[in-house]
Amino acid sequence: MAGIRVGILGVGRIGRLHTDHLATQIPGANVTAISDLDLDAAREVADRLRVPRVLGDPMALCSSPEIDAVAICTSTNTHADFIEAAAAAGKHIFCEKPIDLDLSRIDRALAATDAAGVKLQVGFNRRFDPGFAHVQSEVAAGSIGQPHLVRITSRDPHPPPPEYVKVSGGIFLDMTIHDFDMARFLVGSEPVRVLAAGGVRIDPAIGAAGDVDTAVVLIEHVDGTLTTIDNSRKAIYGYDQRIEVFGADGMLWAENKTAHNTGRGDATGMHRPQPQHFFMDRYTESFVAEMKAFVEAILSDTPAPVTGHDGRVPVVMGMAAKRSLAENRWVSVSEIG
Amino acid sequence: MAGIRVGILGVGRIGRLHTDHLATQIPGANVTAISDLDLDAAREVADRLRVPRVLGDPMALCSSPEIDAVAICTSTNTHADFIEAAAAAGKHIFCEKPIDLDLSRIDRALAATDAAGVKLQVGFNRRFDPGFAHVQSEVAAGSIGQPHLVRITSRDPHPPPPEYVKVSGGIFLDMTIHDFDMARFLVGSEPVRVLAAGGVRIDPAIGAAGDVDTAVVLIEHVDGTLTTIDNSRKAIYGYDQRIEVFGADGMLWAENKTAHNTGRGDATGMHRPQPQHFFMDRYTESFVAEMKAFVEAILSDTPAPVTGHDGRVPVVMGMAAKRSLAENRWVSVSEIG
Amino acid sequence: MAGIRVGILGVGRIGRLHTDHLATQIPGANVTAISDLDLDAAREVADRLRVPRVLGDPMALCSSPEIDAVAICTSTNTHADFIEAAAAAGKHIFCEKPIDLDLSRIDRALAATDAAGVKLQVGFNRRFDPGFAHVQSEVAAGSIGQPHLVRITSRDPHPPPPEYVKVSGGIFLDMTIHDFDMARFLVGSEPVRVLAAGGVRIDPAIGAAGDVDTAVVLIEHVDGTLTTIDNSRKAIYGYDQRIEVFGADGMLWAENKTAHNTGRGDATGMHRPQPQHFFMDRYTESFVAEMKAFVEAILSDTPAPVTGHDGRVPVVMGMAAKRSLAENRWVSVSEIG
Amino acid sequence: MAGIRVGILGVGRIGRLHTDHLATQIPGANVTAISDLDLDAAREVADRLRVPRVLGDPMALCSSPEIDAVAICTSTNTHADFIEAAAAAGKHIFCEKPIDLDLSRIDRALAATDAAGVKLQVGFNRRFDPGFAHVQSEVAAGSIGQPHLVRITSRDPHPPPPEYVKVSGGIFLDMTIHDFDMARFLVGSEPVRVLAAGGVRIDPAIGAAGDVDTAVVLIEHVDGTLTTIDNSRKAIYGYDQRIEVFGADGMLWAENKTAHNTGRGDATGMHRPQPQHFFMDRYTESFVAEMKAFVEAILSDTPAPVTGHDGRVPVVMGMAAKRSLAENRWVSVSEIG
Repeated sequence: MAGIRVGILGVGRIGRLHTDHLATQIPGANVTAISDLDLDAAREVADRLRVPRVLGDPMALCSSPEIDAVAICTSTNTHADFIEAAAAAGKHIFCEKPIDLDLSRIDRALAATDAAGVKLQVGFNRRFDPGFAHVQSEVAAGSIGQPHLVRITSRDPHPPPPEYVKVSGGIFLDMTIHDFDMARFLVGSEPVRVLAAGGVRIDPAIGAAGDVDTAVVLIEHVDGTLTTIDNSRKAIYGYDQRIEVFGADGMLWAENKTAHNTGRGDATGMHRPQPQHFFMDRYTESFVAEMKAFVEAILSDTPAPVTGHDGRVPVVMGMAAKRSLAENRWVSVSEIG
Repeated sequence: MAGIRVGILGVGRIGRLHTDHLATQIPGANVTAISDLDLDAAREVADRLRVPRVLGDPMALCSSPEIDAVAICTSTNTHADFIEAAAAAGKHIFCEKPIDLDLSRIDRALAATDAAGVKLQVGFNRRFDPGFAHVQSEVAAGSIGQPHLVRITSRDPHPPPPEYVKVSGGIFLDMTIHDFDMARFLVGSEPVRVLAAGGVRIDPAIGAAGDVDTAVVLIEHVDGTLTTIDNSRKAIYGYDQRIEVFGADGMLWAENKTAHNTGRGDATGMHRPQPQHFFMDRYTESFVAEMKAFVEAILSDTPAPVTGHDGRVPVVMGMAAKRSLAENRWVSVSEIG
Repeated sequence: MAGIRVGILGVGRIGRLHTDHLATQIPGANVTAISDLDLDAAREVADRLRVPRVLGDPMALCSSPEIDAVAICTSTNTHADFIEAAAAAGKHIFCEKPIDLDLSRIDRALAATDAAGVKLQVGFNRRFDPGFAHVQSEVAAGSIGQPHLVRITSRDPHPPPPEYVKVSGGIFLDMTIHDFDMARFLVGSEPVRVLAAGGVRIDPAIGAAGDVDTAVVLIEHVDGTLTTIDNSRKAIYGYDQRIEVFGADGMLWAENKTAHNTGRGDATGMHRPQPQHFFMDRYTESFVAEMKAFVEAILSDTPAPVTGHDGRVPVVMGMAAKRSLAENRWVSVSEIG
Repeated sequence: MAGIRVGILGVGRIGRLHTDHLATQIPGANVTAISDLDLDAAREVADRLRVPRVLGDPMALCSSPEIDAVAICTSTNTHADFIEAAAAAGKHIFCEKPIDLDLSRIDRALAATDAAGVKLQVGFNRRFDPGFAHVQSEVAAGSIGQPHLVRITSRDPHPPPPEYVKVSGGIFLDMTIHDFDMARFLVGSEPVRVLAAGGVRIDPAIGAAGDVDTAVVLIEHVDGTLTTIDNSRKAIYGYDQRIEVFGADGMLWAENKTAHNTGRGDATGMHRPQPQHFFMDRYTESFVAEMKAFVEAILSDTPAPVTGHDGRVPVVMGMAAKRSLAENRWVSVSEIG
């Protein structure tokens, strides 16, 4: 039983997913400890996957000698504390996104990991989707020349409860944040300024909670590329996740994923399946691949593929988008921090 | 008013179509005379398209000094007579398919055109469909190497009336005949033997009329290529016309044509339009292009692109398929003639 | 020889196209006179299509008793004068877009047609593309509920010469103007404000001429819908013309048109044809259909389907986009006029 | 550590695949013993997956009290012996296809499992492919009415070594056998007779070994449906696995699977990825699903979804196809047995 020993912090939906993958599909990794405030949940997962240790105290897990790395899958407001604790104990860290909704809190956490010399990987899993990763690698290889225009369509199948948007930071910080990361990933050039437009078109309760449910964000990158993101909280045909990169020498795109490539022709037309609705189905491969990449980065002592800086910039962009929407103007990234 | 002067024999559905095209869309052609047993129909078309001459007697049209060429669009049993009359008068001939359902009658008509030195083009319009023509030209250019397997899907949107199949020669001679031509056209190698299977699955009245309404035909070509044709008299989703050529170095295919490239996503799936239902919509471009090719062959004195031989062989193949179905065995083309 | 008698003003590329269609493919229309400063060009077209009258003086054509309607296909700076002259003579008017680049000049021309009680149809042909028209009719019928987000991709295969952009009014008035019309057409709700971003990514000479060659325009409509347009002067894979309308109950889209629906699989992948490159190939059906609609509106005395107002608003939007780009801010349509 | 205890016979390529799946992805199953003539290979797999027991003697595994079921993944000629041994010991049996190449040997093995009252599932994994399974379930539910025509395209990316075809039974028994099973599965009606055509188009050494490398097989089912299968040992564009079922009320199809849904447009066209080349990538989901189904059948004591009879009939069909090719005639399934 060799390999990287990983401790899991939090076995909610996303924590269970990562634990499953680490326990069964990631060569070189073993889950050796689980911590959750809900001890029964932690024990249930541990039993099922033969994980030897269950801890009630998450801080005890962060410093446990039985682990080499932690996967932080708890609620956002706890991320920074656990990052600092794990870093202080010399553990490598995988942390779900966002690191925090407060930039100075993020900065302190990143400083702690830098000082400790441990790896920190932020959970922007979509970079590891086979289609998106292929497009990015082609762009980075120059196969379509300099990018000019990027389009990201990102629409959820169902709106969240209004209570959620009150604590999540709103659409730009809980949903568009993935697209901000994707824009940086695809273009390979930092954002200069952001313009957002949007409205409440789906659920007035979201509006009452102070948020919008339909939005378009325009990003100007340092290299001149223009990225357009469009978001909706409710696409009746399913989870709509598409990208397109247009450049001097061509265009690359990735389409939606369906459960299977079937079709049906009948008296009413030709029909195809909807995109997969649930993000865990849509992005299964990416969740496995990001964890593989984390473990490989530790094993080979190479930089984590999604850094603390990568975790911070989308938060800045989300804040810029909020201000842009409120003030009806372009907001420079440098205004935010 | 220069160019090739064309006389039209028969202004039923297909005759009107060709007259329209010749009068308005074929550079170098003028329709100068129309003949139809239904003189009112002939006059109506002539008035609309400013055709100067209407004739009641088709034989008079065949020998009229006011025309250089005829387009024979009458019923099949009259084709050979008109071919011979027009050939005797030195007119170039476009004739709808099939030339005749009797091989010896075909042979006499072809001998007449050969003797007269006039051009004869048979109306296998599908060769001029942009998609099928592209596939054939790529195959002929060797871009997928030697062909190995060909698939032709050819399904009608609605079954014909049972009375029709009694006089048409049956499915293999009125419907599959186009596919037999397509097989020769795509592969570029003559058929050696034919095997047919089929049944009555759609309309018992078609069975009572002595025909099948669902069929598969397998063709072995001289060069070893195997072509599979599948036919149905009734595809509920529309007129299904697809081809695929598989070869040593690749595969080429042509898909169905729709009225427009739109789509719709909703709570029940992703939907696309049906294939165009009506053969005149589906094959409009091919009907114009075949007539252009006929006129160009005359103007440039080059061989007609679909010859009398090309008109004859599919009739032989249709007869072989009928015999194969009846006798449950491979039938060599040479058995038929 | 009954029907609407149409006089053509200008037989450059687009004028010849309309003349061909009116002469051969539009039931109920006859081309009875042609005027062009280049009399030889006018005579060449007239001879080919048997048009009885050729005039050197365009104003004489506008008032000729031999015509019921004019099709204005001359350079933009002459449109308004000819509209006024034809209106004064009681002729119905088809006018290529844009009416003019000066709003007050447009307003005077529109006032003249209103006063004369003649029909004026502006040449926004894309509304008549079968795919776009289908999407619009579905949206208008409520089949996807209230629209929320619209995306229009509009990229040319080749950049124009820099001299052209100096006189055309720039990208927003010569290219995006079609997309502004499409946005209004699809959403069925007027624009409130416009935001443009862009840069010179393709040809520095276009920048030297004071224009951009790559742009994104965001439009907020009265009903809250957000339309995003992206433009490039050079898409190496061809003429890219796509739309998508996302609404409460679904999504509709139209894809690019190719010359044929073929494919090829080989050792390097699966390959499909590029979109058609030339706008006349891409939009052939729309050019025929818009002229049919014009003639039908006259024959049935119903309103022209693309009005003078429809011709004016996209010019306003183009001006707003120019100002937005220059001033880096949202520009209200009401600021412009 | 509850659930079904499975012993693995043979950890070659397919055996390792099943062991991995059973050990990590099949709820309710545990791999408790492995046997392979190559003990080192067995130990390597056992170590990696924490399998407690490794046995050199396969017969000892068949009767081991530590297992409830066996997965037979050894060479074809050993299948029947192990089936009989496992059945005698009361173990449930998963057996890779084909059961045997000798019908009487198959019959004795099936009789043994019947007598023992154990479950036998044969490894026709393609039935569990999400796309194929969806099509079958729709057909079975009557959603396209009575099937009329079925098309199965099944082409390998690379030809096998000629030595392989000498022992495999040839193309109809090592490759088309999957398609014979698919035909029965999709149509839900037994085959009546088979006609095969084929040739050596790819590798003369395959011909020298007494086999063909390119083939078409036509099947007539009891209900009148006609299935056409086309096979090639070498599709340069990848592993081509498509099906289509055409019926009275519509058509269903499943297309090829690609590694991701990306595209690329450039100066040479629009490009998509090839189908996945390797059968283990293409059919991963089906291998997991068939094993899940096997375990569930045991746990719920319901019939195995692919029975011994299902394992036998495709062998009969393969023999019929061989005879048909040799004798150039339809061969009834009843002729073979």
